[in-house]
Amino acid sequence: MAELGDTEATEGDHLEGLYGLTDDLVRATLAAIGAGDRQRLKSLTKPLHAADMADLLQALSARNRDLLEGFLGEEFDPEVFVHLDEAIREDLIEDLDSAELARVVTELESDDAVELIEDLEVAKQRALLESVSAVDRALYEAALGFPEDSAGRLMRREYAAVPSIWDVGQTIDYMRADPDVPEAFYGLFVVGPDNKPLGVIMTSRLLRTKRPVAVTDIMEPDIKLIPGSMDQEDVAFLFRQYGLVEAPVVDEVGRIIGVITVDDVVDVIHEEHEEDLLKLGGVAVDDLYEAVADTIKSRLSWLCLNLLTAILASVVIGFFQAEIEKVVALAVLMPIVASMGGNAGTQTLTVSVRALAMKELTPGNAMRIIGKEVLVGGINGIVFAVLAGGVAYFWFSDLLIGIVIGVAMVINLLVAGLAGILIPLVIDRAGADPAVGSSIVLTTVTDIVGFLCFLGLATIVLL
Amino acid sequence: MAELGDTEATEGDHLEGLYGLTDDLVRATLAAIGAGDRQRLKSLTKPLHAADMADLLQALSARNRDLLEGFLGEEFDPEVFVHLDEAIREDLIEDLDSAELARVVTELESDDAVELIEDLEVAKQRALLESVSAVDRALYEAALGFPEDSAGRLMRREYAAVPSIWDVGQTIDYMRADPDVPEAFYGLFVVGPDNKPLGVIMTSRLLRTKRPVAVTDIMEPDIKLIPGSMDQEDVAFLFRQYGLVEAPVVDEVGRIIGVITVDDVVDVIHEEHEEDLLKLGGVAVDDLYEAVADTIKSRLSWLCLNLLTAILASVVIGFFQAEIEKVVALAVLMPIVASMGGNAGTQTLTVSVRALAMKELTPGNAMRIIGKEVLVGGINGIVFAVLAGGVAYFWFSDLLIGIVIGVAMVINLLVAGLAGILIPLVIDRAGADPAVGSSIVLTTVTDIVGFLCFLGLATIVLL
Repeated sequence: MAELGDTEATEGDHLEGLYGLTDDLVRATLAAIGAGDRQRLKSLTKPLHAADMADLLQALSARNRDLLEGFLGEEFDPEVFVHLDEAIREDLIEDLDSAELARVVTELESDDAVELIEDLEVAKQRALLESVSAVDRALYEAALGFPEDSAGRLMRREYAAVPSIWDVGQTIDYMRADPDVPEAFYGLFVVGPDNKPLGVIMTSRLLRTKRPVAVTDIMEPDIKLIPGSMDQEDVAFLFRQYGLVEAPVVDEVGRIIGVITVDDVVDVIHEEHEEDLLKLGGVAVDDLYEAVADTIKSRLSWLCLNLLTAILASVVIGFFQAEIEKVVALAVLMPIVASMGGNAGTQTLTVSVRALAMKELTPGNAMRIIGKEVLVGGINGIVFAVLAGGVAYFWFSDLLIGIVIGVAMVINLLVAGLAGILIPLVIDRAGADPAVGSSIVLTTVTDIVGFLCFLGLATIVLL
Repeated sequence: MAELGDTEATEGDHLEGLYGLTDDLVRATLAAIGAGDRQRLKSLTKPLHAADMADLLQALSARNRDLLEGFLGEEFDPEVFVHLDEAIREDLIEDLDSAELARVVTELESDDAVELIEDLEVAKQRALLESVSAVDRALYEAALGFPEDSAGRLMRREYAAVPSIWDVGQTIDYMRADPDVPEAFYGLFVVGPDNKPLGVIMTSRLLRTKRPVAVTDIMEPDIKLIPGSMDQEDVAFLFRQYGLVEAPVVDEVGRIIGVITVDDVVDVIHEEHEEDLLKLGGVAVDDLYEAVADTIKSRLSWLCLNLLTAILASVVIGFFQAEIEKVVALAVLMPIVASMGGNAGTQTLTVSVRALAMKELTPGNAMRIIGKEVLVGGINGIVFAVLAGGVAYFWFSDLLIGIVIGVAMVINLLVAGLAGILIPLVIDRAGADPAVGSSIVLTTVTDIVGFLCFLGLATIVLL
């Protein structure tokens, strides 16, 4: 525990006994699948939390996964589907018929059920909606009427609300008596006669207040009303910005239609961040669990684009074939300027993309930050001009080549700083997602400028 | 609203009226600062949530920020400090003396106060601890005794707990009468005589239960006990995995010492993800608000490392100077193979780093995923061998050079796939963070293998 450099300990040790999935469990499960021991599989998986069971399934190969699903049969907890990666969920759901699927969906909470239904193929979705009760069907169809990734899809339709004319006593009596009150909630919404939310009361506050006090006297009136059509990314922003635990979702005229709780938002924050990270790495979707063919398909377009930009850079080099033939040192040194530009630009780009996502890069401070990045690029340019120029000079015993690489470095790092902030700003202003594509545009710019500056300057100075 | 392609609407529109900071407000604030209108500034900032006030300060230049802080004086809400970016917080705190700082800290909740204190310079920290009450000092010192980024730093010391021998009636009476019960909480912990947590009761459940029922009958006994020394990343993992809203923090012998709530964890998830994203982009810290000198300093080491690896790649090219002089097309085409390897490898790397962070890449499935990545790399290699080979053949009317670039492409994309998963695995196994440094190791490998294969093969085949 007190070892040097142990400030960020490896995860495994610390989670001992807290995280349900262990290597031993995976091994024992594999052995039981191999032996076809249904009883042992049931006793191994029964104590698992649904999220851990999902992780166990994800740790198995597709074949063993199907076998395990088959062995468990009716005892397969529907909740597990909610926690599975999309690719694997689709795979396992394929094995279920409409009746089994209807059983799964009915056992889930409304928001989880919608999450499952929205990913189904159209035909399967229709068949499922026909095999559930009319009430459930209406509920699912209403949720599916909202855009994908919107508050309307995310919300739970079961919420606790009381009229604003009640007092604490009436509220407590109602909650004790009425079976329609949800099983668990953190806050009670106070609504007007038009069903519009006026405020929220934390249950702990209710518990500590005397019966005759009016609910409007103890409610917190400063609440955020989430429109059903709001994008989940904006919902996550509001929860994070204001430390919300629960927020009412309202229809177009402001009537309460559902509630979003922070645990759903945790998943959204996680997903959105993950998407940003993957996009910056040139991966469209999390393809860890996808089949080889799907992974190749999803990565191919990015690589095709990259081939085009690489060829573009080669065309630039092609202009200088005669010069390279005369001074071959140019071919040896030219990747250095391009590579430094790409890396310096990526640093700026990463900070900018993140600041845009966090709404921290605004029209108000954009000019100041652009100025800063140009300054940083210029100073870094001078530092690396001296270093790279020195290396080139000593390597090829040629002062001019050192000067050429130095000047090219300053120009390219200036351009890299400017491009690293302008490219995401322009993409964002155009209404697109700056995390997608900005890195490929950036490296195209820094490659081309890098090769052009270095080889062009060399042509002027050396030949 | 219904425009085509409007599925991911720009944020601004949707948050109208929900997000407190608007461009108009920034402009009005700037005008009032310019006019030195203290009253106007107070009335502009008074309705703002602390988080929005922090964003307002961050949208201003350093000079205007200091001016605004000065104008507001005593009316500057201490809570704002909690929401500020670290660089700006330090800057504003510098202007406060120990007495002012003590006032700020005392007004905050214990976890927020600790967050502020832990970032202070040692001298300032000592001075502050001497100017608060003995009770507060003991509390802060206990929290600071836990490692940085641990559960002990994150937890709030105010929690609600009742003995396991009580019933619902006693619990409700205690909560109504005792001033020590925290203002707001979601769950009540049930503790044994040794102060060890046995379970949790949601307040909504308590509200709906009759007075004579024993607390142990309605508590949820399946709770996760968080050790005070646990890394906050692991805490976040547990909250996300199990959808926790609140969890008790315990000391070495298992006694409850505090509570972590999900809203604190939202910030941690956010921070940790952000760190991962920045690290992959070669940025150590979020430097958006840092001074130019600090930004340069923090980005320089990464660029220095990159210069070294770029020079290494140049050295490899240097081996083939004689060949390049004879066939200058080699110089033109060589960046293509290296660039494709770097990009394909980055895709694999991004997926692997993410899977490691999510505990989805384990000893159990590592071999299977390595196999998959090699297969994907090989097939992608063949696709791009044909494309790049075709381009090279038509460009230079030379079949051999097309074959050489094709073969080099297959080899480099195979290596890229393998390196993209092995590098983070090895770094992780060595106990370090795979998000840091793995991308630079990867591009070094793909650059060197790319240049070596292409130029080496060309030497054998063409000359």
